[in-house]
Amino acid sequence: MKFHLTILGSSSATPTSDRYPSSQILNISDKLYLVDCGEATQIQLRRYKFKIQKINHIFISHLHGDHYLGITGLLSTMSILGRTTTLHIYSSHLLKDIIDLQIKISDIHLGYALEYHFLKYDASELLLTDKNTSIYSFPLTHRIPTCGFLFINSVKEKNIIREFLQKEQLTFDEIKKIKVGEDYITGDGRIIKNQDITMAKSKPVSYAYCADTMYDESVVPYITGVDLLYHEATFMHNMSDAAREKQHSTTIDAANIALKANVKQLIIGHYSARYTELEPILKEAQSVFANTILAIEGKTYYLSD
Amino acid sequence: MKFHLTILGSSSATPTSDRYPSSQILNISDKLYLVDCGEATQIQLRRYKFKIQKINHIFISHLHGDHYLGITGLLSTMSILGRTTTLHIYSSHLLKDIIDLQIKISDIHLGYALEYHFLKYDASELLLTDKNTSIYSFPLTHRIPTCGFLFINSVKEKNIIREFLQKEQLTFDEIKKIKVGEDYITGDGRIIKNQDITMAKSKPVSYAYCADTMYDESVVPYITGVDLLYHEATFMHNMSDAAREKQHSTTIDAANIALKANVKQLIIGHYSARYTELEPILKEAQSVFANTILAIEGKTYYLSD
Repeated sequence: MKFHLTILGSSSATPTSDRYPSSQILNISDKLYLVDCGEATQIQLRRYKFKIQKINHIFISHLHGDHYLGITGLLSTMSILGRTTTLHIYSSHLLKDIIDLQIKISDIHLGYALEYHFLKYDASELLLTDKNTSIYSFPLTHRIPTCGFLFINSVKEKNIIREFLQKEQLTFDEIKKIKVGEDYITGDGRIIKNQDITMAKSKPVSYAYCADTMYDESVVPYITGVDLLYHEATFMHNMSDAAREKQHSTTIDAANIALKANVKQLIIGHYSARYTELEPILKEAQSVFANTILAIEGKTYYLSD
Repeated sequence: MKFHLTILGSSSATPTSDRYPSSQILNISDKLYLVDCGEATQIQLRRYKFKIQKINHIFISHLHGDHYLGITGLLSTMSILGRTTTLHIYSSHLLKDIIDLQIKISDIHLGYALEYHFLKYDASELLLTDKNTSIYSFPLTHRIPTCGFLFINSVKEKNIIREFLQKEQLTFDEIKKIKVGEDYITGDGRIIKNQDITMAKSKPVSYAYCADTMYDESVVPYITGVDLLYHEATFMHNMSDAAREKQHSTTIDAANIALKANVKQLIIGHYSARYTELEPILKEAQSVFANTILAIEGKTYYLSD
């Protein structure tokens, strides 16, 4: 089942002419989940051909402007384009105060309902379960209350039961056919129903989002073993003092968290505007955690097809 | 003296992947004036190589999101980049409420002062005089209180006094030299001081900004005879009912105002996202007011070099 991550914004607080503030979109089994909504997220969504009315859930990690200033414009556009479906926002209760004030002052009337789910910032919480998808928040350590988010999709796949496998001499092709649901025909022509020789097995695919945060190992239990970890890497290692002061992370911090959490792959982003070249950032992170990749705007990362 | 207009955003409420919400920047005698500040204005400023710290005056016409949602991000970036100079904001007092709330919630501290100048919406008002530049607001007719802005720059140039011109047979080259301040040497070698044969003449250059507004001829006295009039043209003529309902203008409305105000040139913008091609919009406006041009993002219009 589909589990795609697309980066809409990879910049830290100060955007550049070609790096936008934080925003990402997940397509999990054809449902769209928006994670953070920096300024111009609606423009990036259009640029990369996402249907904004298909977004029903928006997750805002914290209320620094580069993570939420695009939301009021997006909400307004959704209404102008005729939305009637309820939109769920997972955020601080203070975001509601901002949006309410802006809507009142602009004297606009949204044609759909907003349903807020206020985040806890002191413990992990299950925010949403939807068929095979579960979404959790967990606390991060930053200058203001901040959450990370964990997305888990349990993909059911058919496994052939062991006794049958041991009894029959199946070819590779036969195994493939049974796994996609076909019945099995024995050498003497008997049909054995697929459900009698298979059992569904759940194979979870998981993605964790950690921005913004300083280096803090207390996050490790929440993200251990995920398939892909997004961890901010605002600075390179030679600026670790600045990172501590601003409660951000360096490349090495992000890589160390990936290592300790034993994740399969690390994707770094939230780059300071001072870095025009990203390769040195990547190389520095890879020196600690080899399976690191860069968050590149407009690029889609396939956790599962 | 320099009087340049650069379009940063030309879209109406719903941006497209290549048209941003309203924002323009004027460079008048090397001072930068920002007019409206839709989402991602700070990105557009970077894209088109403007030095954001040189902006000391921001004018916000009204509080629909597509005209102001970029301001908090811009203010924050100015601070991060080390600004200490006071920034003047000309807007509704309600914008201060929004900005104050966002700054408080984000727990950020601007390293410079904001000085607000709250707009009147029922009469014209002189907002600022600065050497040769005068900036006025004037009322427009929209769904919420909205101002237009008028920028006048009086450029002093030297004119040769009539009596001297009539007496001497000056060559074109000699006239040019006197106009830029050189003394004149007569045929028999006498030097005549420049100040004795010239007088300074003031030649005003003017630009008026009208967005958002429905067709309303009461604006004409404020903008009569300007060198360049920006007038919104959200819709084409066949959507004039929608324009009335939403208190916006059509191409024909904008052109008729330009005609009645006897302006030298009309520039239209604030295009609805439904229009992917702008040529038909231009042609329709030109059918009423021939000297009409399109607002194109990133393009600079030279009212005076």
